[in-house]
Amino acid sequence: MNDPFLAETTALLERTPRVVRTLLEGLPDGWLDTPDTPGDGWTPRDVVGHLISAELDDWIPRAEMILRDGTSRAFEPFDRFAHVERDVGVSPPALIERFEALRREQLTRLRELVGEGDLDRVGRHPELGEVTMRQLLATWAVHDLDHVAQIYAALAGSYDAAVGPWKAYLGILVRRDPGSSPAPA
Amino acid sequence: MNDPFLAETTALLERTPRVVRTLLEGLPDGWLDTPDTPGDGWTPRDVVGHLISAELDDWIPRAEMILRDGTSRAFEPFDRFAHVERDVGVSPPALIERFEALRREQLTRLRELVGEGDLDRVGRHPELGEVTMRQLLATWAVHDLDHVAQIYAALAGSYDAAVGPWKAYLGILVRRDPGSSPAPA
Repeated sequence: MNDPFLAETTALLERTPRVVRTLLEGLPDGWLDTPDTPGDGWTPRDVVGHLISAELDDWIPRAEMILRDGTSRAFEPFDRFAHVERDVGVSPPALIERFEALRREQLTRLRELVGEGDLDRVGRHPELGEVTMRQLLATWAVHDLDHVAQIYAALAGSYDAAVGPWKAYLGILVRRDPGSSPAPA
Repeated sequence: MNDPFLAETTALLERTPRVVRTLLEGLPDGWLDTPDTPGDGWTPRDVVGHLISAELDDWIPRAEMILRDGTSRAFEPFDRFAHVERDVGVSPPALIERFEALRREQLTRLRELVGEGDLDRVGRHPELGEVTMRQLLATWAVHDLDHVAQIYAALAGSYDAAVGPWKAYLGILVRRDPGSSPAPA
């Protein structure tokens, strides 16, 4: 039992709802209306909805399939837009609370289901082919990071005009523009 | 007094040290060693150091110059790498504590210095030319968002290999690669 992977991954996953709450709770509405990319991007509210969808349909259901079916059956495709209709009229604080509760449940389930000896077990992704339990759980953590970073881009976008000429120095704004080339860090 | 700008901007600025603490405090070291971009990028520790530098040398000193000198004198250029030598041997928790204390002080100073009537006052940036107090304060907030998002890219980078084939779906990892084209949201 010397592989720190499960403990490290869980440490990150536990933090995400707390970070989202610390960032968004009580933040004035003026920050919350802008999508991460102009046009079809997601607002912070959409992102929390998408994180809820992934708790419901993605990570633990797929871990269960790896343990039960191995590579004999491909994972169900995951609906990236499930939140759009489901969350109509749900307030941002209620969404954050739902995400917190679900994440807590799913981490309890993870501890029951998966031990260090299961990390190399293999399942089948409908597009990517064979994937391991370790890759699934690492992706769970990086998916959190990716989407919380998306919240940051959305928040920044609401000040896109307000920063004036400084925009040229702010990669998080430059990258939101259609056709932008990757900005330096 | 109907312009919500100062209250909204302050609400974001107050959150940043709390968010950074919630995200990084107690996070296993395995997450903290990777830079946001391979090679010359910054680790989460570097980012906190840079945020400290900006509290010391950038925002409030420039606000004071706008109020005192207007456009008659250009801002001092800001050293983006001041943290590298200054923070040698300082632990991440000590850096976060320093950032929290400085941010608290600088927000107190902001409230003393700047009222709604000052937001259109003008100063001179050494490269960008005339800028307003409002643009300076908006940039303070977006600079926070930009650099905390950079912490997210660094954390994600430490799982770059672990996610296996899923990397193709994770924009936060794809964008770290040199020469990557902008990924969809």
